[in-house]
Amino acid sequence: MPTTRSSRATAAVAAGAAATMLAPSFVCPSAPSKLSAVTSAPAPVAASAPASGVGAGASILGAGAAALAATAAVRPNKRCAKKDNVVRLATATEVDVDTECINAIRFLAVDAVNKANSGHPGAPMGQAPIGYLLFAEEMQYNPEDPKWVNRDRFVLSSGHGCMLQYSLLHLAGYDSVSIDDIKQFRQWGSKTPGHPENFETDGIEVTTGPLGMGISNAVGLAAAEAHLAAVYNKPGMELIDHYTYTIAGDGCMQEGISHEACAYAGHLGLGKLIAFYDDNGITIDGHTDLSFTEDVGKRFEAYGWQVLEVSEGNTDVDAIRKAIKEAKACTDKPTLIKVKTTIGFGSPNKADSHDAHGAPLGADEAEATRKQLGWNYGEFEVPEQVYDTFRKHAKAGSEKQAAWNKMWKEYQEKEPELAAQFKRAVMDRKLPDNWTDALPKVTPEDKGKATRLHSQDCLNAIANVLPEFMGGSADLAPSNMTLMKCTGDFLKDSYSERNMRFGIREFGMGAVSNALSLDKTGIIPYCATFTIFTDYMRGAIRIAALSQAGTIFVTTHDSIAVGEDGPTHQPIETLPSLRLIPDLTVMRPADGNETAGAYKYAVERSKNESRPTMMAFSRQAVDNLPNSSIENTLKGAYEVIECEKPELILIGTGSEVGLCVDAAKKLDKKVRVVSMPSCEVYREQPDSYKSKLLPADVPKMSVEAACTSGWGEFADAFVGIDVFGASAPGGTCLDKFGFNVDNVVSCAERCLSGEKGALSNGSQGKH
Amino acid sequence: MPTTRSSRATAAVAAGAAATMLAPSFVCPSAPSKLSAVTSAPAPVAASAPASGVGAGASILGAGAAALAATAAVRPNKRCAKKDNVVRLATATEVDVDTECINAIRFLAVDAVNKANSGHPGAPMGQAPIGYLLFAEEMQYNPEDPKWVNRDRFVLSSGHGCMLQYSLLHLAGYDSVSIDDIKQFRQWGSKTPGHPENFETDGIEVTTGPLGMGISNAVGLAAAEAHLAAVYNKPGMELIDHYTYTIAGDGCMQEGISHEACAYAGHLGLGKLIAFYDDNGITIDGHTDLSFTEDVGKRFEAYGWQVLEVSEGNTDVDAIRKAIKEAKACTDKPTLIKVKTTIGFGSPNKADSHDAHGAPLGADEAEATRKQLGWNYGEFEVPEQVYDTFRKHAKAGSEKQAAWNKMWKEYQEKEPELAAQFKRAVMDRKLPDNWTDALPKVTPEDKGKATRLHSQDCLNAIANVLPEFMGGSADLAPSNMTLMKCTGDFLKDSYSERNMRFGIREFGMGAVSNALSLDKTGIIPYCATFTIFTDYMRGAIRIAALSQAGTIFVTTHDSIAVGEDGPTHQPIETLPSLRLIPDLTVMRPADGNETAGAYKYAVERSKNESRPTMMAFSRQAVDNLPNSSIENTLKGAYEVIECEKPELILIGTGSEVGLCVDAAKKLDKKVRVVSMPSCEVYREQPDSYKSKLLPADVPKMSVEAACTSGWGEFADAFVGIDVFGASAPGGTCLDKFGFNVDNVVSCAERCLSGEKGALSNGSQGKH
Repeated sequence: MPTTRSSRATAAVAAGAAATMLAPSFVCPSAPSKLSAVTSAPAPVAASAPASGVGAGASILGAGAAALAATAAVRPNKRCAKKDNVVRLATATEVDVDTECINAIRFLAVDAVNKANSGHPGAPMGQAPIGYLLFAEEMQYNPEDPKWVNRDRFVLSSGHGCMLQYSLLHLAGYDSVSIDDIKQFRQWGSKTPGHPENFETDGIEVTTGPLGMGISNAVGLAAAEAHLAAVYNKPGMELIDHYTYTIAGDGCMQEGISHEACAYAGHLGLGKLIAFYDDNGITIDGHTDLSFTEDVGKRFEAYGWQVLEVSEGNTDVDAIRKAIKEAKACTDKPTLIKVKTTIGFGSPNKADSHDAHGAPLGADEAEATRKQLGWNYGEFEVPEQVYDTFRKHAKAGSEKQAAWNKMWKEYQEKEPELAAQFKRAVMDRKLPDNWTDALPKVTPEDKGKATRLHSQDCLNAIANVLPEFMGGSADLAPSNMTLMKCTGDFLKDSYSERNMRFGIREFGMGAVSNALSLDKTGIIPYCATFTIFTDYMRGAIRIAALSQAGTIFVTTHDSIAVGEDGPTHQPIETLPSLRLIPDLTVMRPADGNETAGAYKYAVERSKNESRPTMMAFSRQAVDNLPNSSIENTLKGAYEVIECEKPELILIGTGSEVGLCVDAAKKLDKKVRVVSMPSCEVYREQPDSYKSKLLPADVPKMSVEAACTSGWGEFADAFVGIDVFGASAPGGTCLDKFGFNVDNVVSCAERCLSGEKGALSNGSQGKH
Repeated sequence: MPTTRSSRATAAVAAGAAATMLAPSFVCPSAPSKLSAVTSAPAPVAASAPASGVGAGASILGAGAAALAATAAVRPNKRCAKKDNVVRLATATEVDVDTECINAIRFLAVDAVNKANSGHPGAPMGQAPIGYLLFAEEMQYNPEDPKWVNRDRFVLSSGHGCMLQYSLLHLAGYDSVSIDDIKQFRQWGSKTPGHPENFETDGIEVTTGPLGMGISNAVGLAAAEAHLAAVYNKPGMELIDHYTYTIAGDGCMQEGISHEACAYAGHLGLGKLIAFYDDNGITIDGHTDLSFTEDVGKRFEAYGWQVLEVSEGNTDVDAIRKAIKEAKACTDKPTLIKVKTTIGFGSPNKADSHDAHGAPLGADEAEATRKQLGWNYGEFEVPEQVYDTFRKHAKAGSEKQAAWNKMWKEYQEKEPELAAQFKRAVMDRKLPDNWTDALPKVTPEDKGKATRLHSQDCLNAIANVLPEFMGGSADLAPSNMTLMKCTGDFLKDSYSERNMRFGIREFGMGAVSNALSLDKTGIIPYCATFTIFTDYMRGAIRIAALSQAGTIFVTTHDSIAVGEDGPTHQPIETLPSLRLIPDLTVMRPADGNETAGAYKYAVERSKNESRPTMMAFSRQAVDNLPNSSIENTLKGAYEVIECEKPELILIGTGSEVGLCVDAAKKLDKKVRVVSMPSCEVYREQPDSYKSKLLPADVPKMSVEAACTSGWGEFADAFVGIDVFGASAPGGTCLDKFGFNVDNVVSCAERCLSGEKGALSNGSQGKH
């Protein structure tokens, strides 16, 4: 750790002293007091000051120091306004490198937010000591190769405080964040958007901002580490051996997703997951005592985590160091380090209030903060020794990677088979040649079955040939049919296995799965639930699409044919609403071959493009279709019943394609039946194909057991369901809501006669 | 409590004995054993048996009892299969009324699920003792008036076990569930659907099934009780004074929503909320140790709950009684009673395994279970004394309501003013005359401002005239502008206030708010977050629509104009995806008058129809429009710029209406500008109005900063955004993604020339 000491001492930064004035919780002493403090002028160095940290033990030269000039402003604590004020005192003391580095982080945040006139300065100002220790001392990374597989992972779960992360990446020497990039904070086209975005900025692992997402991603990253280590490490050759760090705030802790993912992490005993809880007591509404009074530490102990506390996180760098050491010493449990910090630490008038949360400090307050913290540098100015400190550590990271490269060479010699797999699957992230040969194929003569059973066949076929394929369901394995037979359960004592037991935790499952992909170690993750319960994890599906995570979302029970479970379990608007998410592909296969085609698409999209696919499978049996094939599925839509010059085209998806086939037989016209397993894939086809398959001048009618909105893009008339379903046997539901041959035939005739729009919307089924 | 004793004793039901053989967790003794047991023949009554309960202390007549006939089947515990079997022993003992009632519940569930050949028998079989105590001893209710305001509320959070609730309602004498209704379990049109649905069956308070929803609703019901009690109760006249009970399973505990709602309940100190955690150790995937090993009790203690345990919940009725007593004694904290039960209790071959979870026992196993539990009655047969027991208690409830009616009369005399309010707002659930006079109105000359600020004006206006209006935001009060100035915070020591501080818990907030409406005491609840984070609470919004909860979902920051926060915070598909939910009305007002109109609609829809409305407001300022009014808003769409014989119609929503107005001015054509604050409301207008406003033969183009899908219903061409947004100032985002006058004019010209579909979809903004 750096013990170099600045030759330049300032009077301020008496964070330690300030800290002693600030009770850890919201004590409101009875009388306000005004304390003179703070100077920005140089003061004599107290050479005997402690070697590191300016924590509780930091010397306070106080009023005796030269040039005590400024007066610390005193402002009322809003929640305690009637009782008293909280006072922040700054006193002359020696500035060591720790403090200078920490303040450099703080002021990059303050200045960038001020320049953008938008952003969140408070969190970075409080979290700066944690960030400093991670990026200047603890973390193993190499800015020259941000994708080095054995880097430590860092996730800023309180993503609004992203200036912390940008400051750290910049100071550490990542090309992706220059000082000019920081000056472009939150501007169009910049590398420093308003929340961390992995797809914009190298060095960012995942996209955060939606609260609770990051800490849940961190669980996934740590799970990936545990799995890869178990699969590939050999004695003396630990290819994968790194930590996952995350900083989470009050919001993350309140969100349900953190419950799901952190309970799962505790269950898994992920010893290399180290989460900092930035316990600053402030949220947007004010002090957390307004809404958030749970004992977070006790809750995490209940999950099976080790819980540590740092009572003064603004300045007591040593205490944080010690906690990280303790966290690393505990290898069979994740660790939560609860760090008491002050939001907007150092700001005389805004610290410890929500005013420091989501708005710039402003020029005057930035100046006052400079005085308070003794920061004599200009806007965006960083002292050389700060760069030196970070880059010395980054260089050590580069050396670690060099040593790793050497080990990897040795590994290739000693473990050629595993090494080849590691190279292909993890490092090059490529699929093996001919892997799709394993996918099952069917003929129309094969007995029909539910597409969820075809999905099971595919999952198992893939599991056999792709060791990087792993996943599971939210406690619906026997319903989703998602267990892989060739492998066991990924659990505390069996990290090398691949069946994940996510528990009834859809949202956490989604975030964990996304992180398995964003780990960028070639894992192809899938996760499963009932189609309807994508609502519970929609936030994770959206961010998979946005952040380019190659998650395969497997869902079953994809329509009212769910039957008896009733309307709470019957998707109506679910698939159409998922089709609206940009960059997500939705697949609803109609039979065995389409299911295989969907998996081919999803696996390749995950591995090669790191993009998500959402799949919907039937609970009920469906016949295998004429003309279905993997190749046709990959066109998004194709002719199931061919017809040269059709008078009518019926377009179905999934289980309704068979219904269209049956209806076509009853119609006294030339009818083409088109199966459209994926609107998104179809849209990407050449115009020549599309205009031939669905010519503009032929009446077209869609049939899908889902709401009709959106079908206007492909059809003139629609048979669907725009009302909630009902509890009854699945066949009865389909029939009552209009998914029977008679009704489809009758609607087709109306379509032929020129009627447009929703010809059948399920309202006939409402009793 | 009933101490009457059956004169008919059976040999079985030796649940107590069985229990002593079953360790509370999954102990697997090393050798299987076969124990003879169980008889269904009458046996001598042991008159000296304990007075109540057949718990641990129940006498075991064992092998000495008459007619030991059947042999208890022995089956391996799946998870422990290699180690051993779990043995369930049934022995002759006296049958008391408790047990007979409990078994009646169990067999109604077994028989109904068997008859339907679909459903979940296991949970009711384990939870029957809890249900029995609640409905035959503890709960205050009157089957003749299921809506009595002071009834105790009961929520089955593990809704798949709904046969428990149907059995209880039937036994208690609710007209809504006859024995014939039970025989129609899960059939088309029945009163006994596959999950409890309040809108189908009187006596059901809320709709459950999606896990975690029920326990979160229960928090809302308890909050409603606390609020109404604080507002209306007077010494000696406690109009509102009831408990809220809920039974939740492992799934509820794993779901994140339970974290959010239960942490909030602990924070509020809701002492009259009593939750049973049915700790049966089994989920669909198998034993909970696969995925769920947290210490649930410790977690709830961390939330500030009292936590009690019952170690043998299948039979130890007294222990459950005692726990309920303790729960009631603790008035300042909610109580969690963790009850160890056996899923499928009594089934020799399926108990304690997931085989009892979601499939019928089948005829043979039902018969074997009858033998094991000594149940000599036929299918759907209920002994008279069971009915007598329940109905005696129900009659006591009816008497309690009579006493309450008397008190209410007295209250009306002594507290005429409050009584009048209680009568109008709570009992009759009617809005006061002329309440809408309070709504603010604007003119085009009034300075434009963000619709979220207009929303704030409306919320405050409504709060002043409607004391039943309460709600808050998920820690975004200063952003959503949702604080009511005329009232304080609804907190532990101030239940009479109305600003709810939900914390950063969107999903929990939604479920709690739904319950405030479903309490059927006239509360008009609202809850707020950013538009994008409706994704976090989509499950609650859907179930509000399905279950007819009058929640007003207030959202702000409704488009890419959010700006710097970037794509994680910018809704694209959000509003269109919410428009797909059946029976939900989405409102996106364009100015002050439309905002007032939206609130008029939402409040009346909540109070008069108990239906939800979702609203979306802008972050940025918008001009007030010509021709906007409350009345026009209530048509769903109307002319903002009138035009007799238009050549083109521009249809905008929200902040894009002003853009349409500006574009219309630049177009060298006769252009009508239509504002469409609500598609759903517009759809309900007479055809005559619709065909005049949007004639079929005039080219129409929609402009909305959201994805274009769905606009084909109203327009020929669309300007929208089908790609993710970006971090930059809001105005820049709008401009770059095509929401500027030049682009709208250019697209309008293309529309006029006959182009159709998405003419501008934001892809020009992707860098």
